[in-house]
Amino acid sequence: MASTLNQKEMTGNQNSWDSLLPDFPKGPLSRYRDKASFNWKEMAMFIDGEDIIQLKNRIFSALENDPLFAHHPGEDLCREKYQEVTFLRCKRLFEYDFLTHQEMMENPLRLFNTLLCIGMYDWSPCLQFVLHSGVFASSIMSASKRFVHILKQAYRMEIFGCFALTELSHGTNTKGIRTTATFDPSTQEFVINTPDFEAAKFWVGNMGKHATHAVLYAQLYTPDGQCQGLHSFVVQIRDTKTLLPMPGVMVGDVGKKLGQNGLDNGFAMFHNVRIPKENILNIAGDVTAEGKYSSSVKNVKERFSTALGSLSSGRVMITALSVTNLKLALAIAIRFSAARCQFGPTEDEEIPVLEYQTQQWRLLPYLAAAYALDYFSKSLFENFVEFFGGVLTKQRSQRQADLGREIHALSAASKPLASWTAQRAAQECREACGGHGYLAMNRLGEIRNDNDPNCTYEGDNNVLLQQTSNYLMSWMNCIRDKAPFESPLGTINFLQDYHHILGWKFTAISVEDCMDSSVPLAAYKWLVCYLLRESHLKMNKEKQAGRSDFEAKNNCQVYYCRSLAIAFIEQAALQRYHDYTHNPSVPAALQPVLRNLSALYGLWSLNKYLSVLYQGGYASGEQPGKFIQDAILELCYRLKDDAVALVDVFAPSDFILNSPIGKANGEVTGSHQRTPIDFHNNISILDPSSAKTRKWH
Amino acid sequence: MASTLNQKEMTGNQNSWDSLLPDFPKGPLSRYRDKASFNWKEMAMFIDGEDIIQLKNRIFSALENDPLFAHHPGEDLCREKYQEVTFLRCKRLFEYDFLTHQEMMENPLRLFNTLLCIGMYDWSPCLQFVLHSGVFASSIMSASKRFVHILKQAYRMEIFGCFALTELSHGTNTKGIRTTATFDPSTQEFVINTPDFEAAKFWVGNMGKHATHAVLYAQLYTPDGQCQGLHSFVVQIRDTKTLLPMPGVMVGDVGKKLGQNGLDNGFAMFHNVRIPKENILNIAGDVTAEGKYSSSVKNVKERFSTALGSLSSGRVMITALSVTNLKLALAIAIRFSAARCQFGPTEDEEIPVLEYQTQQWRLLPYLAAAYALDYFSKSLFENFVEFFGGVLTKQRSQRQADLGREIHALSAASKPLASWTAQRAAQECREACGGHGYLAMNRLGEIRNDNDPNCTYEGDNNVLLQQTSNYLMSWMNCIRDKAPFESPLGTINFLQDYHHILGWKFTAISVEDCMDSSVPLAAYKWLVCYLLRESHLKMNKEKQAGRSDFEAKNNCQVYYCRSLAIAFIEQAALQRYHDYTHNPSVPAALQPVLRNLSALYGLWSLNKYLSVLYQGGYASGEQPGKFIQDAILELCYRLKDDAVALVDVFAPSDFILNSPIGKANGEVTGSHQRTPIDFHNNISILDPSSAKTRKWH
Repeated sequence: MASTLNQKEMTGNQNSWDSLLPDFPKGPLSRYRDKASFNWKEMAMFIDGEDIIQLKNRIFSALENDPLFAHHPGEDLCREKYQEVTFLRCKRLFEYDFLTHQEMMENPLRLFNTLLCIGMYDWSPCLQFVLHSGVFASSIMSASKRFVHILKQAYRMEIFGCFALTELSHGTNTKGIRTTATFDPSTQEFVINTPDFEAAKFWVGNMGKHATHAVLYAQLYTPDGQCQGLHSFVVQIRDTKTLLPMPGVMVGDVGKKLGQNGLDNGFAMFHNVRIPKENILNIAGDVTAEGKYSSSVKNVKERFSTALGSLSSGRVMITALSVTNLKLALAIAIRFSAARCQFGPTEDEEIPVLEYQTQQWRLLPYLAAAYALDYFSKSLFENFVEFFGGVLTKQRSQRQADLGREIHALSAASKPLASWTAQRAAQECREACGGHGYLAMNRLGEIRNDNDPNCTYEGDNNVLLQQTSNYLMSWMNCIRDKAPFESPLGTINFLQDYHHILGWKFTAISVEDCMDSSVPLAAYKWLVCYLLRESHLKMNKEKQAGRSDFEAKNNCQVYYCRSLAIAFIEQAALQRYHDYTHNPSVPAALQPVLRNLSALYGLWSLNKYLSVLYQGGYASGEQPGKFIQDAILELCYRLKDDAVALVDVFAPSDFILNSPIGKANGEVTGSHQRTPIDFHNNISILDPSSAKTRKWH
Repeated sequence: MASTLNQKEMTGNQNSWDSLLPDFPKGPLSRYRDKASFNWKEMAMFIDGEDIIQLKNRIFSALENDPLFAHHPGEDLCREKYQEVTFLRCKRLFEYDFLTHQEMMENPLRLFNTLLCIGMYDWSPCLQFVLHSGVFASSIMSASKRFVHILKQAYRMEIFGCFALTELSHGTNTKGIRTTATFDPSTQEFVINTPDFEAAKFWVGNMGKHATHAVLYAQLYTPDGQCQGLHSFVVQIRDTKTLLPMPGVMVGDVGKKLGQNGLDNGFAMFHNVRIPKENILNIAGDVTAEGKYSSSVKNVKERFSTALGSLSSGRVMITALSVTNLKLALAIAIRFSAARCQFGPTEDEEIPVLEYQTQQWRLLPYLAAAYALDYFSKSLFENFVEFFGGVLTKQRSQRQADLGREIHALSAASKPLASWTAQRAAQECREACGGHGYLAMNRLGEIRNDNDPNCTYEGDNNVLLQQTSNYLMSWMNCIRDKAPFESPLGTINFLQDYHHILGWKFTAISVEDCMDSSVPLAAYKWLVCYLLRESHLKMNKEKQAGRSDFEAKNNCQVYYCRSLAIAFIEQAALQRYHDYTHNPSVPAALQPVLRNLSALYGLWSLNKYLSVLYQGGYASGEQPGKFIQDAILELCYRLKDDAVALVDVFAPSDFILNSPIGKANGEVTGSHQRTPIDFHNNISILDPSSAKTRKWH
């Protein structure tokens, strides 16, 4: 983030830091804050810069000061009410209009951070907002000028939109979509139909209660009976005044989910619903008045990719959403672990649980992951912005096409990596806080439950990983032919040295030797080449055994292509974070801790593949495994006194974090100040009448 | 389970099977059921026997036919109401009285299965029932005859009990309990006090709303100011008629949890609450009228263990609870995977997702774990029954003491193993069902959330594992001295060959060679010895470096003692399941599938330690890792056609399983029969008034 770096240098002085980032109140966490090796304000300025910090402060305080966003602790909010208040909050976000169009265009990271800040408060209104203005309205905007009227209505919230692709029986396999849109030249309309229950649109966010309009994906049929492939259409599904379903539309809520229950996911079935011809989103193709199909894209396959083009941003955003959940869970668990004392060297003295090796090892590698993946997710977003610039300016260069493929391969693995990391971390944080983690008010359950669908939507993680391994396998021809090759972002350039890298060995001769991320990075390069070779060999073997492409691919996933895709993306994330933390422009005071984080993330991730390193001959003997594991524990130990300050850098305000055990002052169980609040929460449940008097809007 | 085996042989004929276990309705799952290599009814008879199957049927149909246990799908039941109906259900369980005392004593597995059957329906009423009749009443019963009156009231549900040990700041570290009970000889009473908020009793099940009496743990102080250690007392906390708190007692609900919200966990603080002298549960000690302390147990440390004796059954039961959750999650996910079709070899043909290697690998090892751990948990329960018999008959033999230590070491690791396995499986099953797994009505979220506290209560998993590694380390002296040794259950007897085993190597020379559980079992023996040696060496190194015992132990957990404890318990579970499945008395038709399960569980568990096998020189070269992984995939493939039948063996009735995607007929998304029900669920949410007219009692 060169731009961020420059901003930092311009504003990097103690005074401006203090005005932007006030000190934390004194309390049980002070003992750790005082021991930190770096100034957390300097770190925040380095990572985010003044501009983003100001934006975050603005958003956090706007929400905190708005009664509509007030928390109602102890209240057992029913789903119905939660959906209502979420919709009102979503509307309010439009009124806030945190960024001007100008500000957004100047620095897209502002929009990125705005969404994440709202999500830190609650994903439901954030996603509702994104689905309406980001997904629904953007899909329409990228079509043609004839939708200006609808767009204006959308931005005024006179209509409310949703994006209807997934069906009950087909989500990840979008080719299986079976809703139809048949052109009727006699009336110049498309007729939308749902063939059966399995083809009902399902899961559609905003559709359950509130959406009046949908961008609907359907198979386009021309009057000659020909299927022209998947296209999208604007379809009104509810009356804008009464919210009653339009004729022929059966629409409703999918029911309670494990999380994100403020968001109204819905289903819809269509029976001869007629929409004007103009309502086709003519991105991939269009029909003439006579019903002849014309396409700007040559073949059905290419048309299909173009129709799905507007989805490609989703996985980049979910990567960032997941990293945000990772941060929230860690902020809570690390502050709790630093404040909570249990057992100790003598009967009378108890020590913070963060002092225990096991607790450090459970949490601190995830803290390192949060830093490394946060950087990766931002840099991937910037890559996507570059790519999207090319889409908007209709670039047709080879580089643009290659960039699209590379970002597709990266985001198809970064989403699994980030969502699984956050999911496991949330569970580990929950357990690391013991019973307190199991209390709903401490929010770790909500974080885990809200993060969970990140593993599924926009493509099931395991299925998506195949996209990445396919991409990597596609380079095997170049490797075999020893032809020079490179990708726009350079993430696969190291494969040029494939044969050479396969000869590498683990060379560190001490634990101290392993304390830099260059060690796991080198091992990862070898690992990716090794898994690529093994996957390629396995695939050839399967084909030689007479298996079809489909079967062969199916049989090469576990321990081969799947591992390859995950190892590759971890390597890519580590490479970027290694470069970032080893850049000479990093302020000297921050270098040691950042490099420790980079090394810990690398070694801890690599440790999963230790057996492969041995199997493939990269490592041998007792030492490599011991060095790596000892280095992980030593880095955890070195980072434990920095952990609270590292969490302070990214934790939102107490109001936003909304977790009694994660409060910035660390008054967890040690404070009697906490008593009235908590007991109030508990007692209000005993007396539900008191809760009922509260107003939501 | 010799007894079960005999029963099976007595009743093993097709007619009796069919009357006990009716056929499943035809449907999408029939294709898999027809392909199964064995008769699921024969398997059920072999595993459970006629007696237990009858019991299960009786319980399942009683609940199904009782309106109080009716499901109310789509209804967003608030916590308050859920707690109310749970209490009514708990009361009803007393009325059912599924077993006579005689039946229970004849075969304690009947009680064990009764609880698990109720838990399959919902853990909240099950745990409420157990806490009152099992934990509260049993603690009183084991004290002295003077509590007969209270016991009678308890069994008539005139009073309702809870077990109050944990405090806000101390759960796992029970030595830190700070509630006091001071004897006042002037009134012949104990005076109960909570020194501060941190010492409030917390998490206590049944205490939140319903309990009138508590078995309360407190530090006993005699009038001379001496603390005599932790003792338990019967304390009335609420008026039995009005349910208002007794004078000096502040009691309430802890608030919403991530799961188990039907159970009313509570907190309580005591201010000079006076109870009669007789209310001390004189198990460990008593006071005279003058206030002199007398103990049946010699020293404070021993007294402490005795006071906690009544807890030791908890971990054995949680092991079984967790295995039950594992079964529930698998029943849903495997049936769904067998019915749900996605993608396929051609554009038009879709195949069940269970046909995909990745899906098999995600689910089938957990199915093997369910079988292996189910057997282990039952056999551990039987060990505990033997031990408890000794407690009741006041055996003071060395064998009884050794048995207690061994069962402690086993259960302190079996609870972590089972609860983590179930927790990970529930998450994997949730993801493996895609979006459908994320719908609350399909129950995977509830299973995961209800299982979660199994990782925490009755001792945090990571802390508990130290008990097991301590036990194992304690044998190092015998090993060093080459003194002969054995344990009552024989689980550590193989350590006698420690030096010899450390010289073992991986010897399989083909994938086929690895397809029996003897291969992972041998590797596990080596692994336990190796980790024991490494942990011992590491501990000595730490001590030589001048670290205190506390520090040294703290620094030996990760990669050493923690791994040792987990590897040991996996080895113990595998050993028992290997012996069980290789017993010649296993019906010939069941042997192949049972041995496949045993091999898969062993290899899949072992695969986590592959790097240790290489590090320690047990394995070398590419082959061992490849053989093991290829064998895992091959076993998954062989088991896929048996998976539905294997799940049929343990799945409860549709009513109990209560998951539309887990229905026995497999009508998941392929059936239009399902439409009305599901849409009804969804639509009832749109119209909450319809839900509100329903009555709970």
